Order: sequence, then C-alpha cells, then structure tokens
Amino acid sequence: MDTGEAQRTGAWAPSGVVTLLTDFGTADTYVGVMKGVLLDRAPGVQPVDLTHAVPPQDVVQASWHLARAVDYFPSGTVHVAVVDPGVGSARAILVAEDRGQAMLAPDNGLLGPVLSPDATVYELDVERFALPERSRTFHGRDVFTPAAAALAAGLAPWEAGARTDAWQRGAWPEAEERPGGLVIAALFADHFGNLVTTLGASRLEGADWSVQLGGEELPLVKTYADVEPGAGLALIGSAGTLEISVREGSAAERYRAGAGTPILLTKRT
Amino acid sequence: MDTGEAQRTGAWAPSGVVTLLTDFGTADTYVGVMKGVLLDRAPGVQPVDLTHAVPPQDVVQASWHLARAVDYFPSGTVHVAVVDPGVGSARAILVAEDRGQAMLAPDNGLLGPVLSPDATVYELDVERFALPERSRTFHGRDVFTPAAAALAAGLAPWEAGARTDAWQRGAWPEAEERPGGLVIAALFADHFGNLVTTLGASRLEGADWSVQLGGEELPLVKTYADVEPGAGLALIGSAGTLEISVREGSAAERYRAGAGTPILLTKRT
Amino acid sequence: MDTGEAQRTGAWAPSGVVTLLTDFGTADTYVGVMKGVLLDRAPGVQPVDLTHAVPPQDVVQASWHLARAVDYFPSGTVHVAVVDPGVGSARAILVAEDRGQAMLAPDNGLLGPVLSPDATVYELDVERFALPERSRTFHGRDVFTPAAAALAAGLAPWEAGARTDAWQRGAWPEAEERPGGLVIAALFADHFGNLVTTLGASRLEGADWSVQLGGEELPLVKTYADVEPGAGLALIGSAGTLEISVREGSAAERYRAGAGTPILLTKRT
Repeated sequence: MDTGEAQRTGAWAPSGVVTLLTDFGTADTYVGVMKGVLLDRAPGVQPVDLTHAVPPQDVVQASWHLARAVDYFPSGTVHVAVVDPGVGSARAILVAEDRGQAMLAPDNGLLGPVLSPDATVYELDVERFALPERSRTFHGRDVFTPAAAALAAGLAPWEAGARTDAWQRGAWPEAEERPGGLVIAALFADHFGNLVTTLGASRLEGADWSVQLGGEELPLVKTYADVEPGAGLALIGSAGTLEISVREGSAAERYRAGAGTPILLTKRT
Repeated sequence: MDTGEAQRTGAWAPSGVVTLLTDFGTADTYVGVMKGVLLDRAPGVQPVDLTHAVPPQDVVQASWHLARAVDYFPSGTVHVAVVDPGVGSARAILVAEDRGQAMLAPDNGLLGPVLSPDATVYELDVERFALPERSRTFHGRDVFTPAAAALAAGLAPWEAGARTDAWQRGAWPEAEERPGGLVIAALFADHFGNLVTTLGASRLEGADWSVQLGGEELPLVKTYADVEPGAGLALIGSAGTLEISVREGSAAERYRAGAGTPILLTKRT
Repeated sequence: MDTGEAQRTGAWAPSGVVTLLTDFGTADTYVGVMKGVLLDRAPGVQPVDLTHAVPPQDVVQASWHLARAVDYFPSGTVHVAVVDPGVGSARAILVAEDRGQAMLAPDNGLLGPVLSPDATVYELDVERFALPERSRTFHGRDVFTPAAAALAAGLAPWEAGARTDAWQRGAWPEAEERPGGLVIAALFADHFGNLVTTLGASRLEGADWSVQLGGEELPLVKTYADVEPGAGLALIGSAGTLEISVREGSAAERYRAGAGTPILLTKRT
C-alpha cells in the first residue's frame, strides 16, 4: 500500500466544502461555534451539516452515515466526524485521504468502514493545530475544526501528520448465516421509521427471498408504490442496502423495532 | 396564458441561492447528501434550509410553508420542495417559473397554491438530470437536486422540460360560511404553539369579529402585548392570516389543539 | 467610556458572516425566511445558525449562548439574537459594537452579560431598516434581519442608530456564598445531559472543593476519562465554567436535574 507515497507528491485541491457530522445535537451552540472557528481560519468555505443527531457516542452509526455521504460530495471536500467518547484521553486523531477527499475523525473505529483500500491514513499533529486555550472536553472546536480549516485552506492531508498503519479499523454489524438463510440486525430507524440495515443488495442476488419481521412475512419489492398504503415491505433502500418500511407509515412503530432488531431472510426453494 | 412564451425569450439570472424544503428530518444525512450533490454540480451556491420538519407526506403543509417563504428570497432563487408520497411511482416532477424564481416539486398539488396566475409550469425531463445510479426511494438526492443544481448554474426553467398545463393544482383548507360567521380549521401549530390558519386578513375586514375556541372567547388584537401574559388571543400573524396564540404560552397546549381544530368566528352586530 | 467616539471614526470591515440565535425552532420556516431576507439584501453573506432551540422567551439562556460563541467568530461578524418576549411593544432594538463585531438584540437584558466594558451600544433606527410591510409579531424577519444585512454589507454599527447608555444590562444567575462554600443553580442541561453553570473556574482556584448533587459527592476532575464509565463527575467544561456530567451518560437523567437545580460546593479544610 504505497499509494500514499504517490499521493504525497500529488496535488490537494480543496473544494471549499467542509462537512460536519457529530453527536452534539443542535440545541446548544457547539456546532455553531465550530463553524465560527472554521470561518475565522478559512474565510469563504461552505460548512455543510451531515447530521448532529448521531446517538451519543455511537461510533458505528456515525461511520455508516459518513460512508453513505462521502461519494456525493465534490473532490477536495473535508469531512469532520466527531463522535468521540475518548475525548480528553490519549486517543489519536486521524486524517485520511481517500478518493480525493479528506476525513478527520478520532481513532476509534469510525473511519475504517468508510475508507477504500486506496486510502492513506495520517495521525494528526494535534499540537500544531490546537487552539491556544484547548479544553479537555470539546476537541471538535479546539482541535478538529482548526485542522479542518487548514485542510480547506490548502494544506494537504499528508502534510497534517505522520503516516500510520496502526489505527483502529472498526466494523459494522454483519449478517449471520442461518440454515436456509440469513439474519441481520437493524442498524437504526430513520426519520420515517424505515429500519436500515447494512445488508448489501449484492448479497441477495440470485435467489428468491422471504423476509420476516415480528411474525409477519414482508414482500421484497422495488418501491413503496408496489404495495398498498399501510402495508409493510422490504426493499433495497437509497443506501443500496436492505430496509424494512411501511408505505405511508413507520416500520419502527408498526413492528416496535429499532437498532438491533433482528430481521430474518429465508431462501425460497 | 402566453406569459410563458414571453418568458422563454427572457433571461434567467440565478441568485446562487437554493432552498430545500422536505419531510426528511435532520436526524439522518438525507439533507446533507442533497447539499453534497448540489455543491458538486453547482460549486459556490448557497443552500438554505426552509424546513425539514414537514409531517411525513403532508403536501398541504409543505405547500403553505413554501408559499409564505418565496417572496422573501432574491430573484433567481431555486426552491426545491420534496414531500413526495409518490416517489418511485410514475408521478411527474414539475419545474415552475414564477416571479423570477424557480420551483421544483412533485406533481402532487404542492405547487398549486404557491404559484401566481403568471406562473409557467414545465414537466421536468427526468432522464436528463437523474444521477446515473438512481434509487427508487430518494429522488430528492437523485433527481430533484441535480436538476436544481443545473438551474442554479444557469439553465433556465423553460429549458428543463416541456411546458404543461396538465398538473395537479391542489388546495388549502378554506373557511366555511356559517350563519353569522365562519369556521376555519387550524392548519398546524407552530414551534410556539400558535395555531396558524389560512384565513386571510382581508376576509375579516369591515366587521367586528368574535373568535371562539375551546369554549373560550378570544379578543382579536394587534399584538401579543395587547393582552396580559398567559391570556389567549387572536391576531393576524406574520403570514397575514388568522392565528390563535397565548401570550408567553402555547395555544396548542392550552386548548389541546392542532392541525384540524375548528376555530369559530362570529360577526358582532 | 468615550471608546465609542474613537470607534466612530474607525473602520468597520464586515466578515460576511452573520449568525442567528433565536427561540424560533427549526420546524417552521421562520429561520429560513430570515436567511432569505438576508441573502436578498446582502448577496454572498454566509448565515450561521448558533441555535434556534433557546426555550421560548428565555433571555438568560440566549445571553449565555451568545456570550460563549462570539469570540470564536471572525472580526466583522454580525450576530443577530432574537429572543424577544416584547415583540410588538415599544421596546427598543440595540446594536452593539464590541471586539470588532456587531450584535443586534432586543433591549431586554440579553446583551448585557455578552458585552465587554469597551462595547458601545446604539439604539437601532427601526424605521430606517424595517421592511415596508412590517408585522407586529415577527421582527426577526421584518426588522432585525434587514438591519443585519445592512451591517454585513458595510454599514458600521455606529451608523445604524443613536448612541445610548440607557439600556437594560440584564444578569446571569450567580453563586451564593454559604458557610464553608457556595451554591450555584444549573443554567441548563445540554444535549448530552451535562448540567452547565455560570460558575467560572477562577472562583474555584486556591482551594480543594467537594461538589454535591442529589445526595451524591462528585469528584472534581480534569476530563471524563478520569472516572469510570457511568460515574458522575464535576469538571470545568468547554465554556470555562463548572459542569456536572456522567461519563458516557446523562447527568440530567441520573440526578433528575435541569435549569435551576442547586449544586453545592464545600471547601475541604
């Protein structure tokens, strides 16, 4: 994996877009203040909120959300993901370069499932970027954002710290094989009550599947309109993975389901 | 209505502002990803969130919110409204040009009450704008936003599809005449618990009105400070329509009221 | 305090950043419409949401949030804070110039604790900035934002109204002396359930303190990782003041605490 060496001699062309993904919520001014630091140090950049409603300290959900968003942003975008149970401890902060974009996150497994095999990872030189009066509890403001501002203003990811291979890979929940099928746990319920899973469409190809949840058998369809309003269904959602929905309703409510709820898939013979 | 013909030869000068109005919520990354698509294809534009808290599939509320916002934006703004129960079905997507601004919405009645008599409406050429890997469930990302980016980057609304007159007009709830008065259903309760209606101020001119809700008679006043803290009141709100409020309190809570609650207006003789 | 005179002859160099802090929530389009007015009158400015979740009419919390945010923004930023129980009454609107930034707020005590001794305060010339059709209930849209747009576009704060010293100073809750210690009321619980207070770190220097809440004695530590997951703790938070937290949990839930909950500090001898 000497791709990194090649990239070090390449060009970094920031897009001026910086995304923020946190578990900070929007009721306080934590996110607003991060944007202040960003615009103070990189005037003219465009901050974009990915989400700030990741459940507190839920690194896996943060990872999923970032992974599904990156490819829709322009080359040269800087992504800042701060879900950081270890803030104030000795955990490192990572800068990754992947697919022409930069990503900043704590070294806690968040980045692993987001990165492609061609990514290169650096350990952020924290002392170089930290605000002079650094708190012990809000590195989003005091470390991550000043570093993101530097990247958005032209510093290349490979200039922000030392290359490393010793970082936490993390992982998402996977489907388990069962006699005649699979079981997958829902990753989370989205705003509409859709139960989102990590089970990719490719895993379902070449067979006819029966999907079961809460004692009900659900048709695997192409789109909501394929069933009657109020009916439950399974489909490949906009993230390219299996989702359980209720047309014009909420699967989370109907099936009293959420993160962790098992969904059973059986091969029809 | 040949205004459209005239406009086709006119100029389209985008302001660089693109508003987003959805029922997607902000807990997921759906809205953030739309901004990624937008900034990838129209660098430098300014996305503005109108609201993402429209109740799921509530086309009428979406329509109201858009209608009340448009006139405050600069000429050349592109408004994207995605409340789309029919996503994945054969429903069309509309592009309207009105008052120098462009609006994109599903053909489900959302746009009708927003548009002036001078508006022209086109059916979006979906195949031309859709992302290569189009999902069946998230046209906000895969169709609406790429089209909005094209409009924000200079494509005129009349270049985005074929002129049409066959589109769903939709409608808002209207006041019903009663002996000696009117009854109007609340459209929704806002963040403060104000009950917002569609009943315009002009409808109330030239008479002295008594307003009744939950067995209580409310004074029709000019501003909150006209009553004591904690008292109920009726006034013409910032949208130019009748609202029921409680000074420094919530009318929705006080009167256990919300969308659909009937409000009675009686002419005093 | 003739600093103001000196500043009047100085330069005002807007950064192009305008922050918004309100109690409007984000479910309605109130905030989106303010951004429309802003971008209509000051094209190219960057609006930044500080928060819109201030409890309705809670001027003290608004004041706290603004105070903690200002120093992180670039010189020349315009801050608009609309928590305004007196909207529609005769209350004045203030424009302050402080530390190279401008702040707009109702004259209700919000600005006092935010401003430094070097600040100068002006009473906004409302008639000059108000939209032609001004409502009685939404001055955020009809007065504050047009004035903010003028400031962001180059108008100096001292050109926006007449200098005044007759404005409401307001105040935050303060710690009360007790035999052998202090008692401070929590100002609010943040998104993580941390209980935030106004008690500054300097007040705690030079002594060894015991912190008590809900019959429990909490260690005063440097960072979350200094205690076990699930344990309660006190620390100096990112705002430089005392906070009560639970590591990887919610102090608000654990101690059934929130705004107003008293926290006891006792000097160890």
